[in-house]
Amino acid sequence: MSVQRLKIGCAGLGRMGKRHALNFLQRTPRAELVAASTPDPVELEWGKEHLEPYGVRLYQNYDDMLKHEGLEAVVVASATAVHAEQAIKAINANKHVLCEKPLSTSVEVSQSVVDAANKKPNLKVMCGFSRRFDTSYRDAFNKMQTGAIGAPSVLRSQTCDKLDPSGFFVAYAEFSGGIFVDCSIHDIDLSLWFFGANSKVKSVSAVGITAVEPDLRKHNDRDNAVGLVEFHDGKIAYFYASRMMAAGQEDTTEIIGTKGKLAVNTQPQMNLVHLFDDSGVRREIPQTYWDRFEYAFVTEANEFTAAVLDNKALPLDLTSAVQAVRIGAALQEAMVSGQKIFFDESGNRVEGAKL
Amino acid sequence: MSVQRLKIGCAGLGRMGKRHALNFLQRTPRAELVAASTPDPVELEWGKEHLEPYGVRLYQNYDDMLKHEGLEAVVVASATAVHAEQAIKAINANKHVLCEKPLSTSVEVSQSVVDAANKKPNLKVMCGFSRRFDTSYRDAFNKMQTGAIGAPSVLRSQTCDKLDPSGFFVAYAEFSGGIFVDCSIHDIDLSLWFFGANSKVKSVSAVGITAVEPDLRKHNDRDNAVGLVEFHDGKIAYFYASRMMAAGQEDTTEIIGTKGKLAVNTQPQMNLVHLFDDSGVRREIPQTYWDRFEYAFVTEANEFTAAVLDNKALPLDLTSAVQAVRIGAALQEAMVSGQKIFFDESGNRVEGAKL
Amino acid sequence: MSVQRLKIGCAGLGRMGKRHALNFLQRTPRAELVAASTPDPVELEWGKEHLEPYGVRLYQNYDDMLKHEGLEAVVVASATAVHAEQAIKAINANKHVLCEKPLSTSVEVSQSVVDAANKKPNLKVMCGFSRRFDTSYRDAFNKMQTGAIGAPSVLRSQTCDKLDPSGFFVAYAEFSGGIFVDCSIHDIDLSLWFFGANSKVKSVSAVGITAVEPDLRKHNDRDNAVGLVEFHDGKIAYFYASRMMAAGQEDTTEIIGTKGKLAVNTQPQMNLVHLFDDSGVRREIPQTYWDRFEYAFVTEANEFTAAVLDNKALPLDLTSAVQAVRIGAALQEAMVSGQKIFFDESGNRVEGAKL
Amino acid sequence: MSVQRLKIGCAGLGRMGKRHALNFLQRTPRAELVAASTPDPVELEWGKEHLEPYGVRLYQNYDDMLKHEGLEAVVVASATAVHAEQAIKAINANKHVLCEKPLSTSVEVSQSVVDAANKKPNLKVMCGFSRRFDTSYRDAFNKMQTGAIGAPSVLRSQTCDKLDPSGFFVAYAEFSGGIFVDCSIHDIDLSLWFFGANSKVKSVSAVGITAVEPDLRKHNDRDNAVGLVEFHDGKIAYFYASRMMAAGQEDTTEIIGTKGKLAVNTQPQMNLVHLFDDSGVRREIPQTYWDRFEYAFVTEANEFTAAVLDNKALPLDLTSAVQAVRIGAALQEAMVSGQKIFFDESGNRVEGAKL
Repeated sequence: MSVQRLKIGCAGLGRMGKRHALNFLQRTPRAELVAASTPDPVELEWGKEHLEPYGVRLYQNYDDMLKHEGLEAVVVASATAVHAEQAIKAINANKHVLCEKPLSTSVEVSQSVVDAANKKPNLKVMCGFSRRFDTSYRDAFNKMQTGAIGAPSVLRSQTCDKLDPSGFFVAYAEFSGGIFVDCSIHDIDLSLWFFGANSKVKSVSAVGITAVEPDLRKHNDRDNAVGLVEFHDGKIAYFYASRMMAAGQEDTTEIIGTKGKLAVNTQPQMNLVHLFDDSGVRREIPQTYWDRFEYAFVTEANEFTAAVLDNKALPLDLTSAVQAVRIGAALQEAMVSGQKIFFDESGNRVEGAKL
Repeated sequence: MSVQRLKIGCAGLGRMGKRHALNFLQRTPRAELVAASTPDPVELEWGKEHLEPYGVRLYQNYDDMLKHEGLEAVVVASATAVHAEQAIKAINANKHVLCEKPLSTSVEVSQSVVDAANKKPNLKVMCGFSRRFDTSYRDAFNKMQTGAIGAPSVLRSQTCDKLDPSGFFVAYAEFSGGIFVDCSIHDIDLSLWFFGANSKVKSVSAVGITAVEPDLRKHNDRDNAVGLVEFHDGKIAYFYASRMMAAGQEDTTEIIGTKGKLAVNTQPQMNLVHLFDDSGVRREIPQTYWDRFEYAFVTEANEFTAAVLDNKALPLDLTSAVQAVRIGAALQEAMVSGQKIFFDESGNRVEGAKL
Repeated sequence: MSVQRLKIGCAGLGRMGKRHALNFLQRTPRAELVAASTPDPVELEWGKEHLEPYGVRLYQNYDDMLKHEGLEAVVVASATAVHAEQAIKAINANKHVLCEKPLSTSVEVSQSVVDAANKKPNLKVMCGFSRRFDTSYRDAFNKMQTGAIGAPSVLRSQTCDKLDPSGFFVAYAEFSGGIFVDCSIHDIDLSLWFFGANSKVKSVSAVGITAVEPDLRKHNDRDNAVGLVEFHDGKIAYFYASRMMAAGQEDTTEIIGTKGKLAVNTQPQMNLVHLFDDSGVRREIPQTYWDRFEYAFVTEANEFTAAVLDNKALPLDLTSAVQAVRIGAALQEAMVSGQKIFFDESGNRVEGAKL
Repeated sequence: MSVQRLKIGCAGLGRMGKRHALNFLQRTPRAELVAASTPDPVELEWGKEHLEPYGVRLYQNYDDMLKHEGLEAVVVASATAVHAEQAIKAINANKHVLCEKPLSTSVEVSQSVVDAANKKPNLKVMCGFSRRFDTSYRDAFNKMQTGAIGAPSVLRSQTCDKLDPSGFFVAYAEFSGGIFVDCSIHDIDLSLWFFGANSKVKSVSAVGITAVEPDLRKHNDRDNAVGLVEFHDGKIAYFYASRMMAAGQEDTTEIIGTKGKLAVNTQPQMNLVHLFDDSGVRREIPQTYWDRFEYAFVTEANEFTAAVLDNKALPLDLTSAVQAVRIGAALQEAMVSGQKIFFDESGNRVEGAKL
């Protein structure tokens, strides 16, 4: 008997592309990374060293990779700007797709991926919200499901990055969609997960500041922002995003219910070491998103692979990825305009609050 | 040589009145509780048992107590509705005043206490925001002052009570001023402390829900609320208040600066015990505000007494108590109306956001 | 009606004497500190400033203080060398006694206090093991009593002081009885509390090192020591004492039972503040025994006072204080000699292990 | 270019064998699991399902597997009783060896593996002490190396298993070498790591009890044991092992130095979730050794592989594995006999303590 492996190609070999490629190459036993594509010569060089020796075929052109013989699936890990286009091409070429978040910073473009996927119901198309695959978030979700906190009512969640003194994120802000679409998108997705994908937004309000990087205002962005989302069924989610954490990555979530609370990562830590010295008791915390969620991405790769091979349901629905972008974009607009934005239960904007 | 003690009287012997009376009687060496007043027969009975034997004179009538010979100061710990009136009477009778928070649920009435106090600059008049006297908050403030977190930029703070299944807080809500004035007032005061008393509000927005007690809506109140305050100098404070915590009192604050973060009580605990059993590792947390802040009230009593006896500056300024009520009331209005409210730098309401 | 207060005198106004005097003066409502004695002129000067103005009569001579009119009780807080003598004199003068630990570094002398007390069954005589009055230890004890951990079987406890760079403890070691009698005595007392006062020692073994202060060997002492005590009923207690902690005071205890574990202070902390900065997440811990147990001493003073005034049982038995010294002295001997020491069930030394 | 992979076979497919086999099959990119052996039909069946489809050849006979064409290395993960024999056979067949701990419960037999390895200096032979590969322990070690705690002086370490109510460990105790050889061996190895492999034992003493499983005494074993090891260079290590933890696996270590302390896993936790409900704040902890150290085993497999392929030094020396067994066996003897055991600096037993 021989084992069936999912033949997958990786689009993009940048920061996240490298990670996805290596995860499918080394840590996804049921998948076989057969191809990777990137137009970038430096990334290509990296691929020649780290992928080619293991039998991975490299392509400069994404469209060529899609024609790789036997290719069954694609992980889209390129720049956000081409996520949607590449995902749709793959779908049209009858490939299963795992697409990095977000599908697009535009709600309409994001929706076009869903539309394409809907035409191919036999394909597995997933947007990779990594926290859905994190063991701690899953444990929290399962506990909530078993009634441990009663009815979930309020969700607080934050995505806070360590300050990058290079100021890279200023240039990055031009295309990121802004702090709520780039960072808070994870927290928004969590609210849709814990409150239910059908949760309907009633209002959003937000404020933001530039505490360390005033130049962000050129791109209508901020380095610290707080957003407040009210749902029509009487639930609240509120978010904090920051790009200036001193200690490291602080991605924290609390789900408050009528009978209890679940706290995820309210005591961040890098490992199990505490140092006691004359300055007190100290521990280190993850420095990056990857430090914190590395294994979630491994699980994501494995579960996507299993869903395809075993034709099982994907662990998260593609349409909620569009809904997350919609909420993130509304928060960003509310922050920039200073205005509170209201929606009716069908998702249409309305003027003022309906009491 | 004999010791000079501050002769103080306590107005009110309800829940907080009893505590203040006993603190001044037993735990404030430089003060002498000489009198207490309450119109309530049950409270009076309590006073006969617990205060009179120690030489405390009891009065049914507050005005009579003010005439107690030698009385130098009054702690106003009666119902919120009479705080301001009693405080003003005491000021006019040339007594120093420690008044429980809030001065009033009305901004105007609160201001009238300040006006009265301003006419008697020799008197010490303080509104007791207990967290200002808590060792942890003070340690955090001192660390901030020494530059440990750079410039403070974002403050998150919450006052979350354990669910009282008696539903007492529904009736209470009729006169409490609402959840932002009753609970979040402490967090608002913290923002004025950590950001500076001159911080000027630019906008407030808020949402609230009734997750456990729909009847609160009769009094325009909610059991869970999140508020968002933007200051003109580019700072943000956001608040969460709840009346349905399952585990106990959770009063948590984070002050995020450009170079660090101070976290106060993000890991609440009743004491230093952990129980390991087949359900995991468990600790208990304070059940009430008093459990958490008992010693802050003792410090408050002692420092008020010292400020009077030694004619030193009070640790907090009376005007910021009015500012706290102003912000709390605006948040409450924003929550009930659903509208975001804007202010110019002089504190006047303005229409819409000025970008 | 007037209140009856316990008239108490304080023997010694050194480090602990000052604290006990102030506790009885200011924080023990049912007691009245009427006298204090010390032969030391500097201590006497302190008393003139801090006690005399409050009506406390000062004595240079302890015997004179015992004759103070109306004196009902004495807190012995002088040098360890005179604890027993002063306690016995007080007992013989029909005074209730609260004696600082240890009664003596000698088992025989300690026993003589018990013998004196036994002749005056109407008197309350207590040796102040402060941890018995600490809220966390009490909570742990109560949880154990209710069966939370099944049958307690193993106790680990440590008394670890912050390094005093002055090296004071070297001179101090000449009279302290050694690290097991001076420090571990608290942990030993805990084992007698949690395992029962009738626990019979089967064997003791111990090792010690001088990691920072070799001169301690002149006094047969060490700066770090680990002791191992086996009880005849199949229980184990093991202790660690150190004088070189870098971060502060670390007094930690675990009680392991057949169905659970209670951990006291395994996560030491000064307060509820965490500082997040580029070195990680940090908290401070108590620097001294007093930082950690200040309120336990207040409780001790109040409960001793109540036991006398209300003629109630004392919260701990005097004989177990002798037993604690006996075990501490045996551990110290085992450490210095390098030999394991064995006892039969009557407490007599025996040669070798009886299997 | 093609990639060179280490062709490895796995001896034993029991509990640990399965894990090692899967680690080398799926999580060790530079290794290729080519063979596995077990005489057990049930284990063989498991191999047919989980290994054979991936190209792994199964053998009933270990000697046959050693002849597998191209086999370069063996991971010995069979019953402890045959560890040494299989390791020696592999060495003699010129295979690199990764052997599960312990090499043997007998010091002499353990030494025979070292002797065999010494004759083949070109081979990499390693005994797998998994904690050496754990990120937290490594971080602690690195911090110590950089001077964070000054000179390490005292090490406290424990290996405490969750109670297995099946009582399996009673039968297991017949061949395990006893609690100090089976459990504490990890802690002993840590002391040799942190204090240095050349640390020479001066004395050992130990006590043990049977709190939950008296039948262990049939095999001269205990369910809770505390051991105390004194080193000739003035350091102390003390160990606690238990088989009755209620909450789960608690493997905790502290390294106390002259300028600080490193604590590893003093706050055990399964993940980053805390549940707040009416019983307090709760977290779960790892249930088994595997829960806690799963990734350490993966690192071990990868580093062993890299050391062979790149001909680099192994991360730990084989002789210290013998020294660990020697200390464990001495502690076990000291516990059973009740006698303290002394050694001179050459490792010879001596009578009594040399002061």
